[in-house]
Amino acid sequence: MPSSPLAPGATIGILGTGQLGRMLAMAAARLGFRVETFGPEQDPPAAHAAAAHMSADYEDEGALGAFAQNVDVATYEFENIPTKTVSILKAAGVPVRPDERVLAVCQDRLEEKRYFEKAGVPTAPIWPVENAEDLAAAMREAAGPAILKTRRFGYDGKGQVRLKPGDDPKAAFEACGGVPSILEGFVDFDFEVSLIAARGLGGYAAFFDIPRNTHRDGILHQSHFPSGLPKEAVDIAHRTAKAILDDLSYVGVLTIEFFWSKASGLIANEMAPRVHNSGHWTVEACDTSQFEQHIRAVAGWPLGRPRRHSDGVMTNLIGAEAGDWPALSAEPGLALTLYGKGEARPGRKMGHTVVLTAQSP
Amino acid sequence: MPSSPLAPGATIGILGTGQLGRMLAMAAARLGFRVETFGPEQDPPAAHAAAAHMSADYEDEGALGAFAQNVDVATYEFENIPTKTVSILKAAGVPVRPDERVLAVCQDRLEEKRYFEKAGVPTAPIWPVENAEDLAAAMREAAGPAILKTRRFGYDGKGQVRLKPGDDPKAAFEACGGVPSILEGFVDFDFEVSLIAARGLGGYAAFFDIPRNTHRDGILHQSHFPSGLPKEAVDIAHRTAKAILDDLSYVGVLTIEFFWSKASGLIANEMAPRVHNSGHWTVEACDTSQFEQHIRAVAGWPLGRPRRHSDGVMTNLIGAEAGDWPALSAEPGLALTLYGKGEARPGRKMGHTVVLTAQSP
Repeated sequence: MPSSPLAPGATIGILGTGQLGRMLAMAAARLGFRVETFGPEQDPPAAHAAAAHMSADYEDEGALGAFAQNVDVATYEFENIPTKTVSILKAAGVPVRPDERVLAVCQDRLEEKRYFEKAGVPTAPIWPVENAEDLAAAMREAAGPAILKTRRFGYDGKGQVRLKPGDDPKAAFEACGGVPSILEGFVDFDFEVSLIAARGLGGYAAFFDIPRNTHRDGILHQSHFPSGLPKEAVDIAHRTAKAILDDLSYVGVLTIEFFWSKASGLIANEMAPRVHNSGHWTVEACDTSQFEQHIRAVAGWPLGRPRRHSDGVMTNLIGAEAGDWPALSAEPGLALTLYGKGEARPGRKMGHTVVLTAQSP
Repeated sequence: MPSSPLAPGATIGILGTGQLGRMLAMAAARLGFRVETFGPEQDPPAAHAAAAHMSADYEDEGALGAFAQNVDVATYEFENIPTKTVSILKAAGVPVRPDERVLAVCQDRLEEKRYFEKAGVPTAPIWPVENAEDLAAAMREAAGPAILKTRRFGYDGKGQVRLKPGDDPKAAFEACGGVPSILEGFVDFDFEVSLIAARGLGGYAAFFDIPRNTHRDGILHQSHFPSGLPKEAVDIAHRTAKAILDDLSYVGVLTIEFFWSKASGLIANEMAPRVHNSGHWTVEACDTSQFEQHIRAVAGWPLGRPRRHSDGVMTNLIGAEAGDWPALSAEPGLALTLYGKGEARPGRKMGHTVVLTAQSP
C-alpha cells in the first residue's frame, strides 16, 4: 500500500453510484484525479460526473479484476458494500480506504453499539433480539416505547419498527423481517447532531463543525449550522471520534450521529464510514468540503482546513419536492444541488438546498 | 427555440473540452443536468466530468448531427469555435447560447474594437494592418511603442509582436504570420480589470464583482478581489456590458477586459463570449460561480445571485508550477483546482489556487 500521496492524473475508484459518489467524483475531478465508478446500474448519477463507469454486480470477480487494473486506489459511498468486494480489490493490489474493518462494525448495529461502548461514549439501552421470545423479554425490560431495528442493512428508517408496551412481539419481529435485530430503548433528547470527522493516511484527524439535524418520516430533513451544542459536548464528540478513528487506523471521512439533551448529555446513535447527508452544506460553508476531505484522505494527501465561514441551513429535497426546482432556482442566494436521478419516487433523495444566513467569525 | 427553462435531467452540450468546459460540466451536473462534450480530443479534461463525450472535428457534419440528437441546448467554452459549427447545430434544431452573432465580433480584433466604440467606451488607438506598408504607416502615426496583433485567433499573447519606433515593419508583419492584423498603440494604465457579466434568456443582466488582474509573459497570473476600482469606473463597466449584452440579445456569461488609470479612466481592451480565467475565484468567493451562472443562462433559468462573500486572490498554475501540488495541497485554507491535463508544457494552464483572505460585508 503506497503511503506517498497519489499524484493528480491517477485514478480513484468509487464503489457505489448515488449522489454521494457523484459529489465525491466532482471533488476528485477538481483535484485533478480521474474517477471510475463501479456499481450495478447502467447510467447512474455518479457516472455522469466520472471519467468512466463499470456496470457490474458488487461481487462480480471478473469485473472487479478489470476495475482493479484501472484504479490506483478505491473507496466507497455506502457502508453496505460487501466485504468480499473489498477483499477482491485488495487481493488485486488496490488499496481500499477506509478498509474493511469499519464495515464489520457499521454493517451490524449490535457491533456498532458495542464499539461505541468501547470508545467510552454512552448509547441508548439495547437488547439483542434473535427471535420473538427475545423481543418479548426485551420489551418487558424496556418497559416503555422502544424501536426494533434489524442488525444489518438498515438506513433511512427502513428495517425499523416502533413498539410500545402491549404490542405483539411476534408480529413486530416478523414485520421487521424475522432477522437478527436489536431492541433499542427510547432516548429522551433535545436534538440530534452529527460529527463529520476525517483521518488522513498519516494519522492526523480533522473535524467539521457539528450541525443540528431534524428528520421527517425517518429521513434527514434539515441540518442547521451552527448546532448550538455546548462546547463540553463538542469535546466529547471529538474524543469519541478520535478514539474510533485511531482504533480502526481509519482513512477517510467518518460520520457519527449523536443525541443530545441537557439532562443526559451526549449519546452516540450510529456511525457511517463515509461522507454524509448532514454534511452537504460543507460545500458552500467551509474552506474544504466533506467530499474533498474524503478524497484527500483516500489519496494520501494532507487533510484540508475544515473552517466554516458561514452560518446556514441545508434542506433535503425528497421525492416530489425536487419538482419545485423552478421556484427554488429563482430564490436569491439559495444554492441548489440536484442529483440527476430519473424518477422522483416517494422518500427518494433527489437533491438539497443550502442557504447561508450569516457569516461566521 | 424554447423559452421555458430546461428541466433537470436534460442534456447540455458543450463545444470545447478544456478546463473551462470541465468546470462548466461540473456546474451543470450540480444542477442535475447531463452533459455531453464535443471536441477533437479522445480523452480531454472536460470529458472526465461529463456524462458523455463525442470526439470529432468541429466541422464534422455527421458527428454534429448525432450530437444534436443527444443534446437539448449547446454552448461553447471558447470564442474560436467555427461559426459553421453553430450553424449546423442550429439547423438541426438545437439552440446555441450565446449565438453566433458574438462570435463574429470576438473572432476579429478589429470588429471587437469597433464594437466597443459603438458601445461608447474608449479603446486603445488602433490602425488596421493588411500588409507591411500599412504597418509602416501605422508605426509612424503611433510614434511610440505599439503592439501588432493578428485580427483572428489570438489568445494568451500568441499572435502578438511588440514594436518600437525603428523596428522593421516587414520583419514584424511576417513574424506575426503575414495575416490581417491591427497595430495597437500602447495605453498607459495603472492596472487591468475584468468584468464578468451574464445575461439570462429573459434579458436580465447580473455582474460579478470586478477583479484586478496581473499577467506574466502575456498570461494571466493573478486575479485580486476586490479590485480597488473606483465606483464611477465600475458604473461605466456595467453600462458598457449592458449595452453590448442587450445589443447582441446575449445569453450566457460575457467577459470584458478593461485597462484603468487615474489619468485616462476606463479603456476597453477585449471581450470573450464565455466564462473567464479571471473569474475562477467566483467558485470559492461568491454565492453563485461564473460556471453555474453561465449554465443557468444557457438553460433558461433565472440568473443566480453573484454576491461576493470574501476577499482573496486567484493564482494560475502555469506549466511546471502545477508540479508544486504536494506543497500546495498542504497549505491551510488554500483551494486547489487542477485540470487533469497530462503534460505540463510551458505556458499551459494546468490549474489554479484560490486563497480567501478576509470576509466581505
